[in-house]
Amino acid sequence: MNRRRRVYEGKAKVLYEGPEPGTLIQHFKDDTTAFDNTKHELIDGKGVLNNRISEYIFTRLNDIGVPTHFIRSLNMREQLVREVEIIPIEVVVRNVAAGSIAKRLGIEEGTPLPRSIIEFYYKADELHDPMVSEEHITAFGWATPQEIDDIMALALRINDFLTGLFLGVGIRLVDFKVEFGRLYEGDMMRIVLADEISPDSCRLWDIATQDKLDKDRFRRDLGGLVEAYQEVARRLGILFENDPKKRSGPTLVKS
Amino acid sequence: MNRRRRVYEGKAKVLYEGPEPGTLIQHFKDDTTAFDNTKHELIDGKGVLNNRISEYIFTRLNDIGVPTHFIRSLNMREQLVREVEIIPIEVVVRNVAAGSIAKRLGIEEGTPLPRSIIEFYYKADELHDPMVSEEHITAFGWATPQEIDDIMALALRINDFLTGLFLGVGIRLVDFKVEFGRLYEGDMMRIVLADEISPDSCRLWDIATQDKLDKDRFRRDLGGLVEAYQEVARRLGILFENDPKKRSGPTLVKS
Repeated sequence: MNRRRRVYEGKAKVLYEGPEPGTLIQHFKDDTTAFDNTKHELIDGKGVLNNRISEYIFTRLNDIGVPTHFIRSLNMREQLVREVEIIPIEVVVRNVAAGSIAKRLGIEEGTPLPRSIIEFYYKADELHDPMVSEEHITAFGWATPQEIDDIMALALRINDFLTGLFLGVGIRLVDFKVEFGRLYEGDMMRIVLADEISPDSCRLWDIATQDKLDKDRFRRDLGGLVEAYQEVARRLGILFENDPKKRSGPTLVKS
Repeated sequence: MNRRRRVYEGKAKVLYEGPEPGTLIQHFKDDTTAFDNTKHELIDGKGVLNNRISEYIFTRLNDIGVPTHFIRSLNMREQLVREVEIIPIEVVVRNVAAGSIAKRLGIEEGTPLPRSIIEFYYKADELHDPMVSEEHITAFGWATPQEIDDIMALALRINDFLTGLFLGVGIRLVDFKVEFGRLYEGDMMRIVLADEISPDSCRLWDIATQDKLDKDRFRRDLGGLVEAYQEVARRLGILFENDPKKRSGPTLVKS
């Protein structure tokens, strides 16, 4: 396994060369970071949970016709994905004011937005991922107007699906971040969902208690991050028991 | 004059009730501010120059069919304008990277942009006029999608005209900020250019020397602000001599 060529290492994931051309292995680490990497911790088991939650969501999105890079699960921390050309934009969909939009526009956290709002951030650590608009994206050639249209349409479909999925298990989808890539197949290119969708990249509030079940537990030093992520997986019916021998199939842990 | 009802006082201008319903008197002050009003100075004669330059540009824009709030000049510091409902968005058009975009996107100042870029900032001093996108503007109802389309089309026409006007007198139009308002006439409403266009709201670089002929002289403590604004007015052929008796008509001061 150590001989695999590492294609890319991010803050919470590593991408290795896959077994066939055009594939990659996406490996979920336990590294947990916030505030441009100035806050960093290893949180045991986080990578396993994110891998599990993300593979579940990507599979369900594939089912409803949202194209993704996901091919199949490989093991507790790894999934096989298609190699795509990542568009250097973080796409944030917000349903409720929280985090940066609350501060930037002076809206109390928890206020429902008049409608879902899509924001774009340019992926550039050294610039602290500045917010940008369609104007910047098209002027600098990061994506074409047609690609932005495709991305926005997919982002809204993902938002509809996830809002429903989480509502069904008593969780409010406050906001989430996604990334998209260009998948080349012969002469064809299409935009597909890439990266991950997990409690690292969503804000998820328990509807009954308002408890945060997402990375804000780390950002805001609330503790209990793994327990929160486990709770999300448990409600989605995809929590593995800890015994690795049992991991051949998903086993719902009784609460 | 002191009995006039003051409708609004901004950082560099005052609006008084006008002589007829639906009109306002726009008064240009000498107050010069920057960095959210943390830097403030009175610069003698600046208001007169901005009034003169802005009335000239608005008149010429009216001539080419860009609708504006401007009716006519009243005196050295004041102009009669139509009362409009100001849209709370600062519209910035950029041709060359300078100021905040250079910093935000890590582009060297002076770099020509791949194409003209329109940016929107939400007018809210207490939030430091945050950058927003069409998504925020439409979601919060600050303007409709149709109004944004009208605003962008007008902003690009203004950019074309001003780029040409300034190029003709040896000045590079780096960027500028404009504001728009809703003008109600009977049952009709249309978007018109409001506020001002002056060296306070533009970046203007001398093409031969690269000298800054705009408010950056104040922001960056370069000195010579009034002289720079006078130079802009002189090149545009609209500089009054100082003798107030002569101000019935524009007199070009020989350089």
